[in-house]
Amino acid sequence: MKISEIVKIVDGILCGNSDLEINAVGKIETASEGDITFISNPAYEKYFETTKAGAVLVSENFVPRTEREDITVIKVRDPYRSFLDLIEIFNKEEEDFSGISDFCSIGDDPEIADDVHIGNYTSIGKIVKIGSKSKIYPNCSIGNNVEIGNNCIIYPNVSIYNGCKIGNNVIIHSGTVIGSDGFGFAKQEDGTYKKIPQRGIVLIEDDVEIGSNCTIDRATIGETKICKGVKLDNQIMVAHNVEIGENTVIAAQTGIAGSTKIGKRCMIGGKAGIGGHLRICDDVTLGAAIGLVKSITKPGMYMGYRAKPMREFLHEEANIKRIPRIEEEIKEIKNKLK
Amino acid sequence: MKISEIVKIVDGILCGNSDLEINAVGKIETASEGDITFISNPAYEKYFETTKAGAVLVSENFVPRTEREDITVIKVRDPYRSFLDLIEIFNKEEEDFSGISDFCSIGDDPEIADDVHIGNYTSIGKIVKIGSKSKIYPNCSIGNNVEIGNNCIIYPNVSIYNGCKIGNNVIIHSGTVIGSDGFGFAKQEDGTYKKIPQRGIVLIEDDVEIGSNCTIDRATIGETKICKGVKLDNQIMVAHNVEIGENTVIAAQTGIAGSTKIGKRCMIGGKAGIGGHLRICDDVTLGAAIGLVKSITKPGMYMGYRAKPMREFLHEEANIKRIPRIEEEIKEIKNKLK
Amino acid sequence: MKISEIVKIVDGILCGNSDLEINAVGKIETASEGDITFISNPAYEKYFETTKAGAVLVSENFVPRTEREDITVIKVRDPYRSFLDLIEIFNKEEEDFSGISDFCSIGDDPEIADDVHIGNYTSIGKIVKIGSKSKIYPNCSIGNNVEIGNNCIIYPNVSIYNGCKIGNNVIIHSGTVIGSDGFGFAKQEDGTYKKIPQRGIVLIEDDVEIGSNCTIDRATIGETKICKGVKLDNQIMVAHNVEIGENTVIAAQTGIAGSTKIGKRCMIGGKAGIGGHLRICDDVTLGAAIGLVKSITKPGMYMGYRAKPMREFLHEEANIKRIPRIEEEIKEIKNKLK
Repeated sequence: MKISEIVKIVDGILCGNSDLEINAVGKIETASEGDITFISNPAYEKYFETTKAGAVLVSENFVPRTEREDITVIKVRDPYRSFLDLIEIFNKEEEDFSGISDFCSIGDDPEIADDVHIGNYTSIGKIVKIGSKSKIYPNCSIGNNVEIGNNCIIYPNVSIYNGCKIGNNVIIHSGTVIGSDGFGFAKQEDGTYKKIPQRGIVLIEDDVEIGSNCTIDRATIGETKICKGVKLDNQIMVAHNVEIGENTVIAAQTGIAGSTKIGKRCMIGGKAGIGGHLRICDDVTLGAAIGLVKSITKPGMYMGYRAKPMREFLHEEANIKRIPRIEEEIKEIKNKLK
Repeated sequence: MKISEIVKIVDGILCGNSDLEINAVGKIETASEGDITFISNPAYEKYFETTKAGAVLVSENFVPRTEREDITVIKVRDPYRSFLDLIEIFNKEEEDFSGISDFCSIGDDPEIADDVHIGNYTSIGKIVKIGSKSKIYPNCSIGNNVEIGNNCIIYPNVSIYNGCKIGNNVIIHSGTVIGSDGFGFAKQEDGTYKKIPQRGIVLIEDDVEIGSNCTIDRATIGETKICKGVKLDNQIMVAHNVEIGENTVIAAQTGIAGSTKIGKRCMIGGKAGIGGHLRICDDVTLGAAIGLVKSITKPGMYMGYRAKPMREFLHEEANIKRIPRIEEEIKEIKNKLK
Repeated sequence: MKISEIVKIVDGILCGNSDLEINAVGKIETASEGDITFISNPAYEKYFETTKAGAVLVSENFVPRTEREDITVIKVRDPYRSFLDLIEIFNKEEEDFSGISDFCSIGDDPEIADDVHIGNYTSIGKIVKIGSKSKIYPNCSIGNNVEIGNNCIIYPNVSIYNGCKIGNNVIIHSGTVIGSDGFGFAKQEDGTYKKIPQRGIVLIEDDVEIGSNCTIDRATIGETKICKGVKLDNQIMVAHNVEIGENTVIAAQTGIAGSTKIGKRCMIGGKAGIGGHLRICDDVTLGAAIGLVKSITKPGMYMGYRAKPMREFLHEEANIKRIPRIEEEIKEIKNKLK
């Protein structure tokens, strides 16, 4: 693609060779001659001196420390967003399969749009609804009475249990399980546990994306609810009857125990552990690896990890243990002073 | 269902309209007119004033703060348990499939009971035994020489490696892996690692339930053992040669490193990390997110997390660092006092 | 097998009955008469007095506390390694299936070696390369343009997304997902998130082993890279654009956030949480359950967990809170001294 075309696409100002041919997008450290790259974070400005890229998207007020006459520069309002647009143009996703495989199985009374794609060895239960343009990859298992909206993508090896409901434009990555039984047992007098029936569903609203190998348990009664626009990273565990509010974003390996309600627009770091029956209000940020055991009623940032070089860590552990002795010594001194 | 029938089922005392028709069970906050709900936890008693439910199960000594003549009340010994019974009656699970699919594969020399159910695209190896009434959902992979007892439920996309043995009444949720290789490597002189053969099995006893996306590794030799009545939540990692004692219950995302033995009737919170080669005695409770590196020989409760509002957290971190200085200051004062 | 044959295999010195027949390998605590076992760790020497094993591999300088004339002893240089060799001989893995199943699906333009094994209901996309002797178990989904080298083992229910590249001698356990989308979203002015296209790949070099239910996300552009000889345990999360250096070993349930680079020969404990955009130099050891938020530039050991009996834990938490008061008291005393 001619650089002049790219200038039009990103609505930028060209400084350099307008005949340049661009073949690919690349990272500034590793880009080669036919590549276009970008500088957004000032920490990466130093690479301008050394990059082999043919062209660089920069912000309107970018001033290079070193002149590079061999590089064509395009000034734009937001180099990162313009770069993302170019990724989509240069690295188009080809359609990998289309239509309904001869080797899939669909149960009785389906309501499946004509333009749905279903991959090999996917098993679909009875009375399942699938909306227009949705795509279900190979080796998925979709239970009875499941509803899937329009424009969804369900990647391989996903399991969706009976009765769960999924909105429009939802993406679910491989290995994720939707609707497995909540973890509920009643202790019996002999010390054994009796299973508490889990007869609710999982409800996933529109525009949700769920990473790979997540598990979202069905409610005991009612629904476990993932609201509109929520984004979940990989290996996230959502227990029964949890509700996650609109546009909340949660990083990988976080676990949320039963019946907790998380507000809107929260951001939760990776590996967070959130106790059961809590309420987290809107606009809360939880640091990575936090262990949360109380409800949060004020927006803000909360933290809980603790990583140190081993020596410092052991030192601090010892210090903490010394506090009661310090207090005693102070008492002693006070007595002497009297 | 007539309320008079329900009264008989739960063996309770009716106060109110004995002709009432009940259509469903519901949570007290969201129940509607035709619903029956319950109050067990006193924290929920306040909802008695506002609930729209037609009927409420309450304990024998329940006294409402406000009279509600429009609500029919049933007094029972244990409202929660009675409610669970009603869930099973109102929300019956329908049989979702039955028999052996035409699209599954069974290897040579099977010993499979006549009344077993096997779903689409499930692949079963050679010399596999499956007991009466067991149900294997679609897209599972069952290795050679696997034994599965009676009345088991194996949900979709479960993988069971060669030679593993599973008792009666076992439930395994989707995506769980039973019998993958233990993580064992011998460091070589050139810094590379050589795989240590993992030739044991996983043995799962009767009445065990395992959540979704768990991984239970096979033993190096001998067996990784999940004893009778154990309940595992989702995303739990059980390493090679671990043994989990009878009726122990473990919450989601817990990891147990190799060769650790956990006693009977333990309760382990979510996200617990338990080191290798430890012994945990019977009747131990581990708080959520604990990081355990020593054996436990006394029953009781152990903890380890630490979550705070960011300001408090940073403050405490700074405080811990100041302890050595405090100690010095005290020394100084003592010297002055002399 | 005659014990005399075993002596030759392990290149050891026999003390005892050279006609003994050995049928199996066993752990010293549970071995029976026809078994051979080993003592390597001195903590296990005490079992020499009580073991029922017929033969024991010991180190050259082993001196029993009690004589056991009924046990045949073989002295070797490294009893553990010799024992591992015997495991492989006594517990040979039988080939569980071979050839290409009639119930798998292979897309257009494959480049698949003649001696490849593919299991039931595995779905393989277009233009896929699979090298000699590689074995893909049932129910896997391999996307378009995927390349898999020689001698690989891909266990059941693995998902490999389009375009990912896997070297030689790679083992991937069940439920693992290679190449799902990185977790990248751009916040919009209305509070919703727009998906950032993830158009890179995952590159796995030779001799890598990956445990069950791991997730390795594809890069935004370029590649997420798992270098030669890396060993990953189960349930590990590797985010987009991460690079893990040669011969690094990572224990279960660890998570590595985006764009972090880990050096060579690192050892990372279970449940570690590693932040994004960090650099960890070669030869670093991270303790289990660490929460790492800064880069590490010096080799060594780093830690971060904290587990205590509940009483001690609560006590320390209270102590930490008292530090500011202690400081004030010291000030007071100092003033008095003046």
